[in-house]
Amino acid sequence: MKICVLPGDGIGPEIMAQALRVLRALDLDFTFEEALLGGCAVDATGDPFPEATRRLALESDAVLLGAVGGPQWDTLPREQRPERGLLGIRKTLGLFANLRPAILYPELANASTLKPEVVAGLDILIVRELTGDIYFGQPRGIEMRDTGNGNERVGYNTMIYSESEIRRIAKVAYEAAQKRNGRLCSVDKMNVLECTQLWRDIVSDMARDYPDVQLSHMLVDNAAMQLVRNPKQFDVMVTGNMFGDILSDEASMLTGSIGMLPSASLDANNKGLYEPSHGSAPDIAGQDKANPLATILSAAMMLRYTFAQEDAALRIENAVKKVLAQGYRTGDIYEPGTTLVGTRGMGDAVLAAL
Amino acid sequence: MKICVLPGDGIGPEIMAQALRVLRALDLDFTFEEALLGGCAVDATGDPFPEATRRLALESDAVLLGAVGGPQWDTLPREQRPERGLLGIRKTLGLFANLRPAILYPELANASTLKPEVVAGLDILIVRELTGDIYFGQPRGIEMRDTGNGNERVGYNTMIYSESEIRRIAKVAYEAAQKRNGRLCSVDKMNVLECTQLWRDIVSDMARDYPDVQLSHMLVDNAAMQLVRNPKQFDVMVTGNMFGDILSDEASMLTGSIGMLPSASLDANNKGLYEPSHGSAPDIAGQDKANPLATILSAAMMLRYTFAQEDAALRIENAVKKVLAQGYRTGDIYEPGTTLVGTRGMGDAVLAAL
Ligand SMILES: CC(C)[C@H](C(=O)O)[C@@H](O)C(=O)O
Ligand SMILES: CC(C)[C@H](C(=O)O)[C@@H](O)C(=O)O
Repeated sequence: MKICVLPGDGIGPEIMAQALRVLRALDLDFTFEEALLGGCAVDATGDPFPEATRRLALESDAVLLGAVGGPQWDTLPREQRPERGLLGIRKTLGLFANLRPAILYPELANASTLKPEVVAGLDILIVRELTGDIYFGQPRGIEMRDTGNGNERVGYNTMIYSESEIRRIAKVAYEAAQKRNGRLCSVDKMNVLECTQLWRDIVSDMARDYPDVQLSHMLVDNAAMQLVRNPKQFDVMVTGNMFGDILSDEASMLTGSIGMLPSASLDANNKGLYEPSHGSAPDIAGQDKANPLATILSAAMMLRYTFAQEDAALRIENAVKKVLAQGYRTGDIYEPGTTLVGTRGMGDAVLAAL
Repeated sequence: MKICVLPGDGIGPEIMAQALRVLRALDLDFTFEEALLGGCAVDATGDPFPEATRRLALESDAVLLGAVGGPQWDTLPREQRPERGLLGIRKTLGLFANLRPAILYPELANASTLKPEVVAGLDILIVRELTGDIYFGQPRGIEMRDTGNGNERVGYNTMIYSESEIRRIAKVAYEAAQKRNGRLCSVDKMNVLECTQLWRDIVSDMARDYPDVQLSHMLVDNAAMQLVRNPKQFDVMVTGNMFGDILSDEASMLTGSIGMLPSASLDANNKGLYEPSHGSAPDIAGQDKANPLATILSAAMMLRYTFAQEDAALRIENAVKKVLAQGYRTGDIYEPGTTLVGTRGMGDAVLAAL
């Protein structure tokens, strides 16, 4: 089994190093091959998603990613920005199903800005469509048009979903709900957008195939409110690429410890790209300060979803729970009374707990 | 001065009645004329925004709205749903600037699901563009297409902004920031959407005309997180119609008392439509339970923005603060130790405090 390793930018290489130590310690039959994605790839090749990375990613069984991006690349032309590498690899590998858990570990309940009683025990899975919607829709651009206000610049993008795109992501979400608490909330803006009216129609239509799942619908503005008002009402949420981008970040932040949250992006055959939900944190890069747990937990998701190694996945997840119980904390989740460790120290603790 | 009064659906008529009592008590030179909008208009005329309402709204100096919508109209064809009335009146009157304050009254600090230290003193103004973006963009629809997956249904919408649309809303936001704490955060998704790249370019470009305003930019996913992580970092936020819909609802809910929050939707000449930020709450309609304060505060915004009657606006706002200090609460903001009142009782208290 071959794993494509993309450390990326900022804290990416440091957190990836710890995830690889953990994976290697499990003594599974994996080979790891590294490549460049994001800003580091632009610096080396001029392309945020170089051909060599593309080939390696296509021929690997799974991709493990650190994080991409940083201020030094923000002023480059659009096509050279690190995010384009991320969008490129998602589309190239057909990773249409982005699974983003928002889980609050009991030991970290204080980290949330929400009251403990509102978030204690929080465990939401957001299923975000990842290769369609306004992210990839055509036509798009900035051009001069006569708008009635004279000739002026106009910027435009196209939100678009086909029936088959909606069906395949809804299927992932329904099946996830079946394995969890049997509740699925589909989020749209059907009262304004035809695109999401189709979304609602199709998701509703599929409900009869999942009689064990309780389906509800929510408008996106209300969902943004309900996540703040009473997040524990949710089990699985499913939505499009754009709304999912916004709501999954909002949901992550409810836990107060985004440094703990992994994510998986899957294709139709459970090949996947696994990465922490957080960004590349350039401000603390290279300082042995970053929390590697989200990346380590992403490796666990990889074992579960791509390699069906549930036992190995649980071993990692239990080790992480154990180090939290033992009181080890990186700076982002530190509280007085706990033991502050660095990136590598946290890796050591997880290895010891395995 | 003529005010078009649109009580609307659900709790709309009850909360409007209290706002009108307060306005009448101020003894200003206003005439009030009522018309139908939303579900009640569909029931009476088949059209959520009937011609008579359109005419009255156009010839009035300001519009005061209760709330529209309810489950009994959700299954009607798109064009007859109450929301279409709302979108119709916004577009007809050219109400491009939606101002939505998210303010936490000290007396109601407990109502928030966020920790008191995170939200105490919260005072954000969200400036949302209201007549453009994907809400009104063409082309849009649901149709059959050959997508490569055979012939199937496709739903699509167009996100679009012109330079002049962006300039006029940014101007409103910059000027609001000048009158407040001088900080403006513009929210976009420029790393993915060309439409919002134009937004960022133009808002940045205008910064030189407002040297007293400190401009920052934030991606919408990050903004959704930062509102949870540290909402007090914001003074004025400006964004497009779609992102503004989501973020303004999220921001309202941070206060825990959306029943307190007014909103204004203004045209280029400060003609405006004023309405509470909350919905029509059909579940408690007609029971004298609804909180009328958001509508009363919307009337205060009307006095300030459309009629430049700052003193009268402040009189209302101070009366509302006083009734809160006196301990009067409707059910939505009730806590043990305070005095529970109904919709009308709350109106009485405000009148007494004026
Ligand atoms: C970097 C950006 C293109 C990306 C997205 O919007 O999908 C990120 O926000 C994410 O959620 O993975
Ligand atoms: C009812 C709906 C069309 C409307 C909107 O999306 O603008 C509402 O959510 C609002 O924010 O006023």
